[in-house]
Amino acid sequence: VTEVSEIGEFGLIDRIRSRRVPHDEDVVLGIGDDCAILRRGPVLEVLTTDCLVEGSHYQPGWLDMTDVGWKVIAVNVSDVAAVGGVPKHALVTLFLPEDLTVKQIDDLYDGMERCGEEMGVVVVGGDIVKINGPFGVSVTLAGVCERDEIVLRSGARQGDTIVVTGTLGDASVGLKALRDGTAGSESETMDGCIARFRRPVPRLRESRAIIEQLQPTSMIDISDGLLSDLWHIMEASGVGATLEAQEIPIGSGVIDFFGGNEEEALSQALAGGEDYELLFTIKSRFEEKLPDLAAGLGTKFTPIGKITAKGAGVRLAGQAGERELERGGFDHFGPAV
Amino acid sequence: VTEVSEIGEFGLIDRIRSRRVPHDEDVVLGIGDDCAILRRGPVLEVLTTDCLVEGSHYQPGWLDMTDVGWKVIAVNVSDVAAVGGVPKHALVTLFLPEDLTVKQIDDLYDGMERCGEEMGVVVVGGDIVKINGPFGVSVTLAGVCERDEIVLRSGARQGDTIVVTGTLGDASVGLKALRDGTAGSESETMDGCIARFRRPVPRLRESRAIIEQLQPTSMIDISDGLLSDLWHIMEASGVGATLEAQEIPIGSGVIDFFGGNEEEALSQALAGGEDYELLFTIKSRFEEKLPDLAAGLGTKFTPIGKITAKGAGVRLAGQAGERELERGGFDHFGPAV
Repeated sequence: VTEVSEIGEFGLIDRIRSRRVPHDEDVVLGIGDDCAILRRGPVLEVLTTDCLVEGSHYQPGWLDMTDVGWKVIAVNVSDVAAVGGVPKHALVTLFLPEDLTVKQIDDLYDGMERCGEEMGVVVVGGDIVKINGPFGVSVTLAGVCERDEIVLRSGARQGDTIVVTGTLGDASVGLKALRDGTAGSESETMDGCIARFRRPVPRLRESRAIIEQLQPTSMIDISDGLLSDLWHIMEASGVGATLEAQEIPIGSGVIDFFGGNEEEALSQALAGGEDYELLFTIKSRFEEKLPDLAAGLGTKFTPIGKITAKGAGVRLAGQAGERELERGGFDHFGPAV
Repeated sequence: VTEVSEIGEFGLIDRIRSRRVPHDEDVVLGIGDDCAILRRGPVLEVLTTDCLVEGSHYQPGWLDMTDVGWKVIAVNVSDVAAVGGVPKHALVTLFLPEDLTVKQIDDLYDGMERCGEEMGVVVVGGDIVKINGPFGVSVTLAGVCERDEIVLRSGARQGDTIVVTGTLGDASVGLKALRDGTAGSESETMDGCIARFRRPVPRLRESRAIIEQLQPTSMIDISDGLLSDLWHIMEASGVGATLEAQEIPIGSGVIDFFGGNEEEALSQALAGGEDYELLFTIKSRFEEKLPDLAAGLGTKFTPIGKITAKGAGVRLAGQAGERELERGGFDHFGPAV
């Protein structure tokens, strides 16, 4: 008897994906990407779902209910942004333990609405279930996309430039501080790291700009960590990648946290997760457009490497030469937070 | 400090619904009906979500994993049928306790696929979370509907005939037997009741036929019990209702179960819940079409009463005269199963 924990989250997804699914010509994108994309006459519907559960995604005290509300909308918006869609409407399922207060629910909805207002998302329904277990909230986000604007994980080609928005690693350092109980006793930079863990800002405007101006060949949002999510692009596209160590935009909180240890800071930025930045590939001729895009949006756009041949894996090029990196990032189905 | 359990499921839904929601002209139907209906250019998208959680909706042993898979798709299809939509695509979120086996997940997907095949639904994505709590599966079902085919809860008018599909009460008797531990030692009729609880068959074909041939003024699916769901129509439409006691299509399992006690059998049929039949209202001139419709589909269609004036509540007319009924049915947020 094999328990699910033995094959892990990605093993289980592979198993589910490998089932004989009835052919449906309305399914443009099915199981395994950030979103499903479905044909509805002349329109393409985008659907994604993501949940936050106490004890699984966070421990009591790490997030207040307003944070939970913000974050559960934000992580879904991030998935829609990653395929080039426009999020519109959310369904919310609440898993409520007996002792939850009405105030906590109000706070949760405040957080969802605040993020929803910024991202153009309205809650239109849901479900409520009393549960003898931990609090959880599951959101399904629906939206639309244009046929010629869909960006899949599978379009990266050898020679393409790999680009990432913003900075990496701060959110996971914030999570580390919360886990270690050192949050609160820390610096302003650490407060920033914790805020990034609690209230990620999905790169929706950036996604629109990337699609309109850079003709991206592939895109994904970084939830599990840059390396882990880059692997998803590599597998779907059948390519390898070389990253330039000195180009990785390590968050200032990461550098503070690890003091002078550059190797540890880099590792945290590459594998930490929870960044909700966009990782995408473009033809190298579009690189020259990045500075203007960055200036217009007030967001960093950093070329961090190149797509290489299939089977090459991920290589990290530094001053001491190149080395191969093991597949990194963290598996939500692995050890609980 | 008010706990959520004090205001109940419907109290909480009212509270959520009363929040100031940003105006969105794309929302044709929002919080509070069986589904959300959303404008997507020329297309109307239907979205609904419903979950099954062990310990909340059923206890271990009441459903095997194939039943859970069947039922979680079926209850969502039932909601789409209730608004006149056509279900298409499902997202599935799994809440997995540590000790679940891969075989159990395979069985769950077998059940979802079997119901999906019959109802034209394909699973296109989802989410997986390891949970320190009970097993649960949450499904969001997406589909489409035609503008002139949408049936809301709010269109019932005085003088309309109230109609219900199939028979009532058997599923809740099956649930009773499972709860009392008397299932298995019972008759063939009881096996039928338990099967109705485990594998409800949503009235999707019937919904299409009702819409195409009867111009229904309102419709809902019976999940909480006929009386409770009739109240939803009455509140949304601003009307009352009178039911004819001798017309209520009481399931044969209910009659068996309560022996000669007609009053208890009737009460079970009116308030038991879990039927997943359609309850709808039509102009009385369409009543004559019901026999042909029933013959064509092999499904009972029973006129059970009339819509009356606002404020009249629900009255039950029997041989001994009329009496007013209290609001019945069961609240999922009340005492757990």
